[in-house]
Order: sequence, then C-alpha cells, then structure tokens
Amino acid sequence: MSNNKIALAIHGGAGTILRSLMTPELEREYRGGLEAALQLGWDILENGGSALDCVEQTVCSLEDFPLFNAGRGSVFTHKGKNEMDASIMDGKLLRAGSIAFVKNVKNPIKLARLVMERTPHVFLAAAGADEFAREMSVEMAEDDYFYTEHRYQQLLRAREEGVVQLDHDGLALATHNKPIGTVGAVACDINGNVAAATSTGGMTNKKFGRVGDTPLIGAGTYADNGTCAVSCTGHGEFFILGVTAYDVAARMKYKGQSIVDSARETIDELGRIGGDGGLIAVDAMGTVTLPFNSEGMYRGYITEASDINIATYGTESPV
Amino acid sequence: MSNNKIALAIHGGAGTILRSLMTPELEREYRGGLEAALQLGWDILENGGSALDCVEQTVCSLEDFPLFNAGRGSVFTHKGKNEMDASIMDGKLLRAGSIAFVKNVKNPIKLARLVMERTPHVFLAAAGADEFAREMSVEMAEDDYFYTEHRYQQLLRAREEGVVQLDHDGLALATHNKPIGTVGAVACDINGNVAAATSTGGMTNKKFGRVGDTPLIGAGTYADNGTCAVSCTGHGEFFILGVTAYDVAARMKYKGQSIVDSARETIDELGRIGGDGGLIAVDAMGTVTLPFNSEGMYRGYITEASDINIATYGTESPV
Repeated sequence: MSNNKIALAIHGGAGTILRSLMTPELEREYRGGLEAALQLGWDILENGGSALDCVEQTVCSLEDFPLFNAGRGSVFTHKGKNEMDASIMDGKLLRAGSIAFVKNVKNPIKLARLVMERTPHVFLAAAGADEFAREMSVEMAEDDYFYTEHRYQQLLRAREEGVVQLDHDGLALATHNKPIGTVGAVACDINGNVAAATSTGGMTNKKFGRVGDTPLIGAGTYADNGTCAVSCTGHGEFFILGVTAYDVAARMKYKGQSIVDSARETIDELGRIGGDGGLIAVDAMGTVTLPFNSEGMYRGYITEASDINIATYGTESPV
Repeated sequence: MSNNKIALAIHGGAGTILRSLMTPELEREYRGGLEAALQLGWDILENGGSALDCVEQTVCSLEDFPLFNAGRGSVFTHKGKNEMDASIMDGKLLRAGSIAFVKNVKNPIKLARLVMERTPHVFLAAAGADEFAREMSVEMAEDDYFYTEHRYQQLLRAREEGVVQLDHDGLALATHNKPIGTVGAVACDINGNVAAATSTGGMTNKKFGRVGDTPLIGAGTYADNGTCAVSCTGHGEFFILGVTAYDVAARMKYKGQSIVDSARETIDELGRIGGDGGLIAVDAMGTVTLPFNSEGMYRGYITEASDINIATYGTESPV
C-alpha cells in the first residue's frame, strides 16, 4: 500500500444557478449525472487505475450526460453548429493535449489525449483537429446526437436577442451572460500521480471563433505531480488573463503554501480582476479543494476519508 | 519626470543559428531588421508614447521584415498557405488579445490588439478570426506579399522530406527540427506601464492546425505592471507545458525575486523539461533581461543606460 490517498473531484460548470428556477426533478437529474461520473472514476482509482485514465473516463461520462455543456450537451454556435474544446494534462510526465473547435467528435477529451500521446504537439485546432480525429478513427457522432432540444431553443432565443450566451443551461434568460459551461475532473491515484481534464461545448451563439480557457494549458487545465492538478470553469477570458490553473501550482511551488490556501487565493485574485467561476484541485497526497466565487458550481468529490459529496450552491460544501 | 526608466527589448527567434552558415551579408540584413524595429520603438517611448503602442509598432516592423517568420516572412503550411498567430498584453489594465491561423492579414499583431480593445474576448481563431479581421477592416495583403522565395523553397524541401520545420530561416537543412520562428517585443514606458507582443508565421509544412505558444497568454506572452512583461520564442510545446511567460511573473510575485533571477530560473526550468528557446522581459523599473538556452537568439534592446545592443549568438550579450 502507498501512503498517499486516492481522490477524485469533478465539476459541471459554475455561475448563476438560480435555486428559484430549479425544480426538484431537474436537480435530481443533475445530481444523477455528477454521481454517475464520480462513481465511474472512483472505481478506476480503487482498482489501481491511473489518474490519467480516471480523469479521461470521468470526463467522458460528463460529456455523455446531455445537461452539461460538453460533448453531447454542447451549446450551439451562431451558425447552429456544435464546436467543442477539451484539454488533458498528465502530472506524472508533465505532458498535455488540447483540441479546439472540433465537430462531431463524440468524446473530445479522448481526442485531446490522442494529441498528447500520438503527436509531438500540445494543441490542435479547427479543421486540422477534425482531420486528426479522422486519422485517429475516434468515435464520431451525427449532428442529431448533439441536438438537444433545450440547447436549440437557447440558440434561437440568443439569436433573437442578439446576445452571446456562455452558460450551459436552458433554465432562465436571467443567466444570459453568466458563462458557466464546462465539465472537468482532477484525480490522484494510488501511486501519487495526478491528472486533470476539462471539456466544453463553448458559448451559445458564439461568433468569430472565440477560444476560451478550456483548451489552454495553464488557464483552464494544469497538472504536475510536484504541486497539483487543476480544472477550471467560469468566465473563460478571466481565467486566461489570470493564468488561473497554473497560478494555483505557482503559489504552492513558490510560496510553499498548501493546495487549499493556494486555490483560495487564486480564486480571490480571479474575483479581483473581475472574473466569476471556480476550480477543482487535488494534490499528490489526495487533498481536494473546490473553491468558487460564483453563486453556484455543480461539483462533487470522493476521497478515502469521505463518501460521495455532491453540491450545487455556495452553502452546501465544506471544502 | 518619472523615476522609472524607459526600456525596450525585442527578439526575432531563437534556436540553432549556425555561424558557419551565416554570411556577413545575411548577418547585416538581420541586424538591419532588428535595428530598424528597435529604433522605431525607442522613438515612441522617447516621445512619451505608451508601452502598448511601442510593442505593437515594433512588432509591426518585425512582421514587415521578410527574413523573420512572422507577417510578411511567414513560413508556408503543408498546404502552401501562410497562417499566422499573434498576441499582445497590456500590463497596465491586465487585458490581452490573441489571434491564431489568420490568413492575408498584413500585421497580425494589430488584429490581436483589436481583439483586446473591441471584443469582450481574449482569443479568436481560424475562420472566425479572419471574419473579425474583415469586419474591423484591417489592412489585408495578397498571397504574393507573403510569398518569399526562400520560404517557398523551404516548404518544398520539407514536403519532400516529410518533416515539419518550425524554424524561421532557410539557412540550412541542419536546422530542420529546431523551432525558432517568432518575433516579439517588450517595453516599459515613461509611466512605468509595461506591455508585451509576440507574432509568428508558425511551422513550415505544419499540418493538423497545430497551435504553438505565441497566441497563448501565459505561455508565449504575458504582461502585468506589478511584475513584468514577457515575450517568448522557441519550441512552443515546451513553453505551453512550462507556462513560461507567466512563470517569470509568478517567481517575481511569489518568491520576491528580481526579474533577472526569475527569468533565468524560468529558462533553466524550460531546459529541465526538454525545451529550447528564450525570452525577453522587462519590469516596471525598466530592467531588461534576455535569457535563452538555445545556440542563438536574434535579439536586441535599448535602455536609458545603454545604446542599441544587438546580438545573435550566445557569447555576445551581457544581459
């Protein structure tokens, strides 16, 4: 037996999640999606699987769940297309893979891992990434797989109103400018290796090929056994400017702080520069932390010391 | 009069620059390109101009110079196209703009600045970025403006040999896998504001829409008045994994170190993870540093204490 403890944390987006607009049924659905992903990832860790396999599979599960803005549940761009971004980083070997603007790839996170393992590159985007997907024979899905009625209604509303929606839910017009659509996972395995993975369907009605923080190593995703693994969610532009994922690791390395203090300070700094959102992080001892400064963040974690914990609003989580 | 000192540093790429293959004529040409850019930027600073205007104009000058791999001198992709990336960051307001894969834009760095100033986004890529360029009416140039004979010959050679060239010169086959094509500038103005700008024509014969560090805030470019402004050049993948530009700032902030020590340590770390290249950096007091671990880096700087300094190889520069 190793001394470190296995641990897994996930998120399904952060932002304005209004309790008043949430029905008990919908809440059960969301919780179900988070719980299934956590259970799947935890089984991998408990069976001695790697943190890398764990975060990839866990994010696949979140991508397959239609209510989160990633994979199957991705929002529509202005032109009525689904364009997806994802990134993964292996804290053991300090290597990473990212893709942006891929279309019809069933699980973008798998393609990100292939970039990491099968190319000398870190980041492939747009038509070139689609070409790489075909060359790798990853599983593709037809447009109607990604067609979810609430996403399409969301696009029609956004087009009508001329707004760009970054959020991932179809709950309320009140959430228009609250960018909350991403999923992510971080894990520490039995060998003390950490990994992080993040995936998103982008912004409803987006134009001009906007790239958010999700595919950017250092901004939306980062992992290094020496410090921690981080996956972010929120208003992407501020996570890019704050270099948020790496900032947690930098505070640990250079200030000698704990992961909990570092992550908290990073989110405080994010707020100072005007950003909304949160992150999940785990270190190589299995300590998890899930700070955020938005009204809510779909999130959950399991550690050896705790059962499955799932929460949505700000007051529910002890971490 | 302010207490801080104005300063400007630039680079034109780093990597294997073989003295044996350099002719006195070619060397004079390179030096001429660096000198013209430095002089133009210095005039802006001396006349009280902002660091932001300075780095934008200085990089425009480097983009217009056909021997560097950016703007006019951009290398050809596998399909015989020029696709360019650029980013700019304003250390005063902590805002940034990036573009990737734009075609036929005469000065990509100007488009990056427009992303920063005219959109709520940081990063636009591919067809969407081209669409934004048209909407902003930036100056475009026909294909033949970007057609430089040595770049085209470089593509034909690379295609024949099935290699991907990341370097920016047509000097030698020996430089094939040495990725050295970027230009960049960092400046500190009379008000102690810093800014950074980086631009590249990418990799010769590149496929699959590879994105390097140049358009990535935190990897290839970073600026914050509280710490420093940084522009990187070298093997992009390692600068992404090392979050290199921001790492210099993080060492200053969290370890309380000087810019010179921080930048040196960042380049040492880059080498440790297997990366080749260098960076230029300036802090808000006007201290410049230009460390690199490759055989050479086209570089230059001017400060109030020094005249124009230009160097190519490892032994020439005192900084």
